[in-house]
Amino acid sequence: MSLLVVGSLALDIIETPFATLEQALGGSATFISLAASYFNPTKLGVVGVVGDDFPERAWDLFRDRAIDTSGIEIVPGGKTFSWHGRYHYDMNTRDTIATNLNVFADFKPRVPKHFKSPDFLVLGNIQPDLQREVIEQLEKRPRLIVLDTMNFWITGFRDSLEQTLKLSNALIVNDSEARLLIEHPSLIVAGRRLQEMLADDEQRIVIIKKGEHGALLFYNEHIFSAPAFPLEEIFDPTGAGDTFMGGFIGYLARRGAVSYEDAKRAVIYGTVLASYCCAKFSTEGIEDLSMEQLLERSQALRALCSFELEEGELLETLR
Amino acid sequence: MSLLVVGSLALDIIETPFATLEQALGGSATFISLAASYFNPTKLGVVGVVGDDFPERAWDLFRDRAIDTSGIEIVPGGKTFSWHGRYHYDMNTRDTIATNLNVFADFKPRVPKHFKSPDFLVLGNIQPDLQREVIEQLEKRPRLIVLDTMNFWITGFRDSLEQTLKLSNALIVNDSEARLLIEHPSLIVAGRRLQEMLADDEQRIVIIKKGEHGALLFYNEHIFSAPAFPLEEIFDPTGAGDTFMGGFIGYLARRGAVSYEDAKRAVIYGTVLASYCCAKFSTEGIEDLSMEQLLERSQALRALCSFELEEGELLETLR
Repeated sequence: MSLLVVGSLALDIIETPFATLEQALGGSATFISLAASYFNPTKLGVVGVVGDDFPERAWDLFRDRAIDTSGIEIVPGGKTFSWHGRYHYDMNTRDTIATNLNVFADFKPRVPKHFKSPDFLVLGNIQPDLQREVIEQLEKRPRLIVLDTMNFWITGFRDSLEQTLKLSNALIVNDSEARLLIEHPSLIVAGRRLQEMLADDEQRIVIIKKGEHGALLFYNEHIFSAPAFPLEEIFDPTGAGDTFMGGFIGYLARRGAVSYEDAKRAVIYGTVLASYCCAKFSTEGIEDLSMEQLLERSQALRALCSFELEEGELLETLR
Repeated sequence: MSLLVVGSLALDIIETPFATLEQALGGSATFISLAASYFNPTKLGVVGVVGDDFPERAWDLFRDRAIDTSGIEIVPGGKTFSWHGRYHYDMNTRDTIATNLNVFADFKPRVPKHFKSPDFLVLGNIQPDLQREVIEQLEKRPRLIVLDTMNFWITGFRDSLEQTLKLSNALIVNDSEARLLIEHPSLIVAGRRLQEMLADDEQRIVIIKKGEHGALLFYNEHIFSAPAFPLEEIFDPTGAGDTFMGGFIGYLARRGAVSYEDAKRAVIYGTVLASYCCAKFSTEGIEDLSMEQLLERSQALRALCSFELEEGELLETLR
């Protein structure tokens, strides 16, 4: 089935304790579409904006991975959006040194004619009004609309965000964003209440990403707890959350179905892709993975959390 | 098989945002032995110290749950150890208002004659010199020695703690303690390095407890990621870690074996008991659980993290 990704395209400056990379290919739409491309949806397109400094190697990469870039507006003489971040020693926390919106400041998403009926839609982390403008341009309601957001929109654009949530079927946020949205210490309560903020459709899906602690999937009345892949070293976590989202929606778009079992597997594939994203700078970790690499880590995740109960024995044992 | 538990017995003052309880039955040995008692080991004994203010209801509870208290020294005219803690609104953080050692200040553990050859030994969170003194009193090496510790001993008694670790087969700590001991941001690296600090025996087991995020079990070369039980409300988390430890060792002691599969199940039962511990004040949540309650939550944990891969499909799908 077809998948449309809307979000940022960026040339970032990434500082980690180990190295610094300038002109690092980044942005939510970049990571989401690259990750989703592994599942080979019928059609995979990106809507976003860049300056004419957006490098040839990025266009090549999109072409190689069969990502339709006709929805990416190129502003002549403009500069591409740029985030400058610095990671702390523990790689779990980071500071934003600068955010240069550049051409992104005046971004008005325009969905190309041949992408106005996508089966699946991902709205990366952009202003919630813009997210709704994308939905309004569509000619039919997608099978699933998946949303990301961030602290800046949660605190400053709450009403608009709630309107966008009411039009969406799935929300993917990290734990601090979930707590900020719901103001309750329990992530279980937060997940449940976030589900209620979504459209009253067949599925109400909330995923709370917890970094090294894995992710919680709330699917209608079900809860699935996915482990993180056990990494000894994190090289650059930039884009890991978007990569997770891309793997999640990419699998569902290929599958063309969104049962609870599908959604659990989608979380696992998202986790696997995110683990590869963290192992190299920028998009380098997810540019050229093999089928075997994805299968191997999926199986490793399964082994990591599987166990057998011996209920008969327990019944005899307990007092 | 027989199980000996060494640790504190306490009458605590617990303040939560919801209520305050004084003279709350507590202490590591209390929670560990109560939790372990559900698995009905051949013999289950406690070594510790109390004042003559230790209440009749506590002795009754130990008797009801077939816990041998002959190793608990009663100091005439003495006051039982007391911790006064106050939980924050989010229940994840707490302040220590006061720690009154009382009779615990001069505690010298004395293992009763009939407990000098336990099959399994748990050393709750006490001074590491005392932990070693217990081991030295034994007449044969237990099948497994399981250790707990805390920040205070890690920073102030590092050498002694390392000596005790070298005599032990298993360490159970929380994530902040693991990071403090190893000084590496990755819990995976921390777990691996902690294993190397243990005795070079058949098993080297490290468990890192992560509260609402579950637990990581490092068993020789294996890693198992256990989810937390999804609780909407935490009433009083005091003793949850000790309860986890008691469930873990109780199951192994009953089983009489310590394979990787046994250890995984033991982590699950520890998680289940800890979840019940958090639901009520003090020991109230684990005083009288039914077999059905333990089975129900074990099965729920299994459902929470189980998924099926469709590898054939994936192989065809991926590009």
